[in-house]
Amino acid sequence: MHVNGTPYRTVWLGEEPGVVKIIDQRKLPFGFEIEELRSVDDIAMAIRDMHVRGAGCIGATAGYGMYLAALEASVGGDFDAIVRRRADQLIATRPTAVNLRWAVDRQLDAMATAEWEGEKLDFAERCAHDIADEDARSCRSIGEHGLDLIRRLVAEKKEGDTFNVLTHCNAGWLAFVDHGSATAPIYAAHAAGIPIHVWVDETRPRNQGARLTAWELGQEGVPHTVIADNVGGYLMQRGLVDLVITGTDRTTHTGDVANKIGTYLKALAARDNQVPFYVALPSSTFDWEISDGVRDIPIEERGGEEVSHLSGMSAEGEELEVRLTPESSPTANYAFDVTPARLVSGLITERGICEASAHAIQKLFPEKF
Amino acid sequence: MHVNGTPYRTVWLGEEPGVVKIIDQRKLPFGFEIEELRSVDDIAMAIRDMHVRGAGCIGATAGYGMYLAALEASVGGDFDAIVRRRADQLIATRPTAVNLRWAVDRQLDAMATAEWEGEKLDFAERCAHDIADEDARSCRSIGEHGLDLIRRLVAEKKEGDTFNVLTHCNAGWLAFVDHGSATAPIYAAHAAGIPIHVWVDETRPRNQGARLTAWELGQEGVPHTVIADNVGGYLMQRGLVDLVITGTDRTTHTGDVANKIGTYLKALAARDNQVPFYVALPSSTFDWEISDGVRDIPIEERGGEEVSHLSGMSAEGEELEVRLTPESSPTANYAFDVTPARLVSGLITERGICEASAHAIQKLFPEKF
Repeated sequence: MHVNGTPYRTVWLGEEPGVVKIIDQRKLPFGFEIEELRSVDDIAMAIRDMHVRGAGCIGATAGYGMYLAALEASVGGDFDAIVRRRADQLIATRPTAVNLRWAVDRQLDAMATAEWEGEKLDFAERCAHDIADEDARSCRSIGEHGLDLIRRLVAEKKEGDTFNVLTHCNAGWLAFVDHGSATAPIYAAHAAGIPIHVWVDETRPRNQGARLTAWELGQEGVPHTVIADNVGGYLMQRGLVDLVITGTDRTTHTGDVANKIGTYLKALAARDNQVPFYVALPSSTFDWEISDGVRDIPIEERGGEEVSHLSGMSAEGEELEVRLTPESSPTANYAFDVTPARLVSGLITERGICEASAHAIQKLFPEKF
Repeated sequence: MHVNGTPYRTVWLGEEPGVVKIIDQRKLPFGFEIEELRSVDDIAMAIRDMHVRGAGCIGATAGYGMYLAALEASVGGDFDAIVRRRADQLIATRPTAVNLRWAVDRQLDAMATAEWEGEKLDFAERCAHDIADEDARSCRSIGEHGLDLIRRLVAEKKEGDTFNVLTHCNAGWLAFVDHGSATAPIYAAHAAGIPIHVWVDETRPRNQGARLTAWELGQEGVPHTVIADNVGGYLMQRGLVDLVITGTDRTTHTGDVANKIGTYLKALAARDNQVPFYVALPSSTFDWEISDGVRDIPIEERGGEEVSHLSGMSAEGEELEVRLTPESSPTANYAFDVTPARLVSGLITERGICEASAHAIQKLFPEKF
């Protein structure tokens, strides 16, 4: 998507050999900086320290990281041993990121099919591009299917009225390679000339909505308004939301949706006000094992300092951290919640839209059952 | 309640004649400062600029303000004209604060019953104390009735297990003269030796939970944990909330509850997880006219800079404001929402607990119908 009018992906191969480029997402929205990663150590640091984040973006970055591992191995030494060690290093950076392990394994498999070192290197480069391209293609398909849904809902409104979408957290292109999941239908609708406006939940405690979603929508010229996470229910009561779309970190094959903490509250408000609540996801996000998401999806508990402290831009143009709570007050930081399938109107996948039920998901992805 | 071990009210008459003392709540939780108000101008400024806030606290401060008006008038000039002018000045500081007008009118009525100026002054002083004392007494009664409820709910738990309450915003003693509304049952249960713990919603965008509720619970030694507003639904799904208690800014005689934005989302989560959701209020908060709160209670929209900017304590010990959003992203700031009566388990008033229904409220307050 666009930054200052120029199209970008979140991660790509630079023109100079052996250089991977990323957008350093820690600096957003206050600064836009492209970072050059020249070694697997650089890639591992960028993933671990969250210069890149989001399932698709982490997977693609790890894919390019494995290409750098192959480059390193091709210089000398035991090729397979070097690549294997680098694979382990990458996987260890964010142990719970499913796409990270998946991308690394796919690279190992690709290299295993090659017969000599030069071919391994070629295969690794092609595989890195394939991972990134497939992620972008998958998100674009989500956008097309989501656009069909939006067109249907727009048809129920008065002609010319603004179509209001509410989203939570950042399931935008910054979390993938391009387009995003929850944002893909929004970008598609905007491009199709539908008068769309997005309510952006700020998404405490890490403010991915206020920082990232607001920034990327602004860069694409999509009208949007940042709101406190508390506001969505009020907006739905007043008929100011036509559709809720969120992403997901893990969705069971029965349709239970684990996503950023607070998603469940928006789903409850949507149900109470008959607002459609959809979840957009590439099928790589399905968990084909777990059946009861509320009971069985483990919820990460992160450091309490993400709640007690917050960083932002000072009047002097410096990013500063401030404390929000009394020094002696403990904080707790549960990062995700699970929205039960009964509250989800549907899932928007790269293959189309389906109900959030085992039966409907099986129909769309029969090979997984 | 206690601050550094010493009992305080939010507003009181100093020993020096003509001096009203308040806790300057803008400085909390980072600094505890007592401010001396020596004129009606001082009082008006303190109310307007939110050195004091919360219905009961504003009402009591205005009551003392009218006593200062009577003191001023007793020095010379047309007593009634001076008092009348000062009354108008105070009412204009926060035009929507019901308790403010109520306290000023009560003072005017009290002075009108006196026969000479010295008596008017005496009546004004007594009336100021009465307003504050009644507010404190009313909150203490809410605490006693709420304690009965907590005891009933504790009896359903395993003996010795912690009893978890979730609250939103600050309906604490800082918003009244003493005890608070939502916090009164919590303080009463803590004093009664019940092992109570409070989940404190930070309450974006103004963070009254993270700043004020956390501070006052800490000063009373009540175990508590500050959480992002997004977390309550998750906690209820996991059985980690036994009772939700909030305050209210206005409750219809049919039981619809206007309160800080986000309250409705917690009520939905409570209903979805069979967690009791109670609202604590002195009966002065009832609106005896409006029947449909969701439709007819006007919702204040405040400045967007409360969403885009946030202040906190820097590492250097200075309170600083930082910007959270991209400069070009608009923000919206709806301050309240309305929780329909169907989601409210009950109302805790100074006369006892009742259902959130016109019938039950009428039974408890028959003289209002």
